[in-house]
Amino acid sequence: MFEFELQARSGRARAGRFLTPHGELLTPVFAPVGTAATVKALTPAQLHELGAQLVLSNTYHLYLRPGDELVRDLGGLHQFMQWPGPILTDSGGFQVFSLSDTRKIDDDGVTFKSHLDGSLHRFTPERSIAIQENLGADIIMAFDECPPPLDRAYNELALRRTHAWAERCVAAKTRADQALFGIVQGGVFADLRAESARFLTGLDLPGYAIGGLAVGESKAEMHAALDVVEPLLPAHKPRYLMGVGSPEDLVNGVARGVDIFDCVLPTRLARNSAALTRTGRLNMGNAVFARDPGPIEAGCTCYACRNFSRAYVRHLMRAGEILGAVLLTHHNVHLLLTMMREMRAAIERDSFASYAESFLRAWSRV
Amino acid sequence: MFEFELQARSGRARAGRFLTPHGELLTPVFAPVGTAATVKALTPAQLHELGAQLVLSNTYHLYLRPGDELVRDLGGLHQFMQWPGPILTDSGGFQVFSLSDTRKIDDDGVTFKSHLDGSLHRFTPERSIAIQENLGADIIMAFDECPPPLDRAYNELALRRTHAWAERCVAAKTRADQALFGIVQGGVFADLRAESARFLTGLDLPGYAIGGLAVGESKAEMHAALDVVEPLLPAHKPRYLMGVGSPEDLVNGVARGVDIFDCVLPTRLARNSAALTRTGRLNMGNAVFARDPGPIEAGCTCYACRNFSRAYVRHLMRAGEILGAVLLTHHNVHLLLTMMREMRAAIERDSFASYAESFLRAWSRV
Repeated sequence: MFEFELQARSGRARAGRFLTPHGELLTPVFAPVGTAATVKALTPAQLHELGAQLVLSNTYHLYLRPGDELVRDLGGLHQFMQWPGPILTDSGGFQVFSLSDTRKIDDDGVTFKSHLDGSLHRFTPERSIAIQENLGADIIMAFDECPPPLDRAYNELALRRTHAWAERCVAAKTRADQALFGIVQGGVFADLRAESARFLTGLDLPGYAIGGLAVGESKAEMHAALDVVEPLLPAHKPRYLMGVGSPEDLVNGVARGVDIFDCVLPTRLARNSAALTRTGRLNMGNAVFARDPGPIEAGCTCYACRNFSRAYVRHLMRAGEILGAVLLTHHNVHLLLTMMREMRAAIERDSFASYAESFLRAWSRV
Repeated sequence: MFEFELQARSGRARAGRFLTPHGELLTPVFAPVGTAATVKALTPAQLHELGAQLVLSNTYHLYLRPGDELVRDLGGLHQFMQWPGPILTDSGGFQVFSLSDTRKIDDDGVTFKSHLDGSLHRFTPERSIAIQENLGADIIMAFDECPPPLDRAYNELALRRTHAWAERCVAAKTRADQALFGIVQGGVFADLRAESARFLTGLDLPGYAIGGLAVGESKAEMHAALDVVEPLLPAHKPRYLMGVGSPEDLVNGVARGVDIFDCVLPTRLARNSAALTRTGRLNMGNAVFARDPGPIEAGCTCYACRNFSRAYVRHLMRAGEILGAVLLTHHNVHLLLTMMREMRAAIERDSFASYAESFLRAWSRV
């Protein structure tokens, strides 16, 4: 049911095709994030028009509200949010560990307080899988522990748990129509990353994620971690770099053999008046745009840029109008999805290095 | 440039065609409100798909932000908000008079404080027309005074001003591509309403609005005011009932010869979790909808009802997701625009009375 076909390579960059029960993913692919079963500010119809293939939703949020059993009873996440294509859910781990003060970790799992009403809850590997089976995504994630990337002792401890929990997730899983990905952890420590990659590939999972990055380490440390892990992961399985990214991180990730990405960046920036462009971020609330008749980004073909001026978008954001967030979300998601298609095409014609170089040169001019 | 053709009648209900520089309006017509140059939560593309013909924008709001001169310099309101069809702007009067504590009226105009920053501003009839000419709508409104509908003495005083100001608006107007409508005032007082209708029709304007209703008087009083005014207005000019309305008010207005309506109701209710249906309002935040797999309104063909469950819409509203407001706005605007098309068709086949009776019977069962 899950098949990954490697179609082309250009250096370490890969173009592939990942078959899921809800259709194929042409990789490299970027997943917009639909935390609460909606990619903020977009309808599924708009998301489809933008060329999105994969959407990520958050287990922690959906478990708390509206509840995974409710989603199951309403036909599962695809039906509930009317996204007919592939969906990925995270394990809930990252969110739970981010609750710092209000959670308690032991070897069996994590007890935490809801950010909504302070009520007590407990996630274990088995519980995370049961919730993700209720939600019904195509790709589900093993429950892992996400320590701060620079803390060696904590990373050693957490890695033992993450590996034990991965085995428990494999044992707990019952649905054949979901692909369970393991998550390579180990912070910025090459030996731990390598140990984690070797351990998880031993479980022969349909895909592998690289977790715990883009959370405070330097770009060089992120690249080094990818450089350690990539050769240790099987070439015929998809690799997913979690929570990444920015335009430059996407290019640097694809350059290091990553196939799948997700990030709240394009949607979150949009709601904060920021436009992503090929030469950096623009704060559309800036007075310099007040009378600017040009599009958000010259040459962009998204709905927002084809129709509206920077002056109008700035006005909408200042007035707190929903359409402002809608238009900037269109633009930002369009840019990242367009970049993914461009990178795939560059890989297919074996010219990824020159694409990456030219993209990063424009980006760094900011 | 502005031509109103009466195409059919059914009782006092009228079907017509109003030619404007940005296309024709098939009446009766309902204008969704785009206060700040955007119909809240909808893109112009979605508004067009919903069959909207006319959009209303607010002079007061656009004058303060982003400024009417900025809109003019960016090509006018049609270009700025990318609504290629007809636009109507109000005069700013209603908003300014609603600022109760922070405005001062004299025979020449009104001095008021901005709700945004407390700065002092002044509107006169001439200023209102100049601003509306900068905005560039197809239909513009005379600057009028809107007194509480039940205060006889105030209505007498205000009517003298409204009439004098209407003459000044006519004199101030310079653009031939804008139709200036006069506004019949007079509260709930039949003699004042009649006096106002007679005075304004004497100015031979291209259309007439009925103002100062739906602001606190009873339904019977609103209907009585319409019954007085309607026979006094020329049959070959469009009539516009300002700030109305609810489904039942639209039916009752069309029954009394009104051609044009506008109201924030469908969009404002949507952002407050309320769905308009043919049998009344639904609070979509209600727990009773938590597991309801049905559409917002059975039989509705809008994008929201064709795709999403009440359970999902309720979840979105509880989670504060933009998509919740987007879907409910789709639904509410779709209902009112569909009703207008149904009423026009009923008038064309001379069966408006039975349409109205059947609609109002279902509505009153609530």
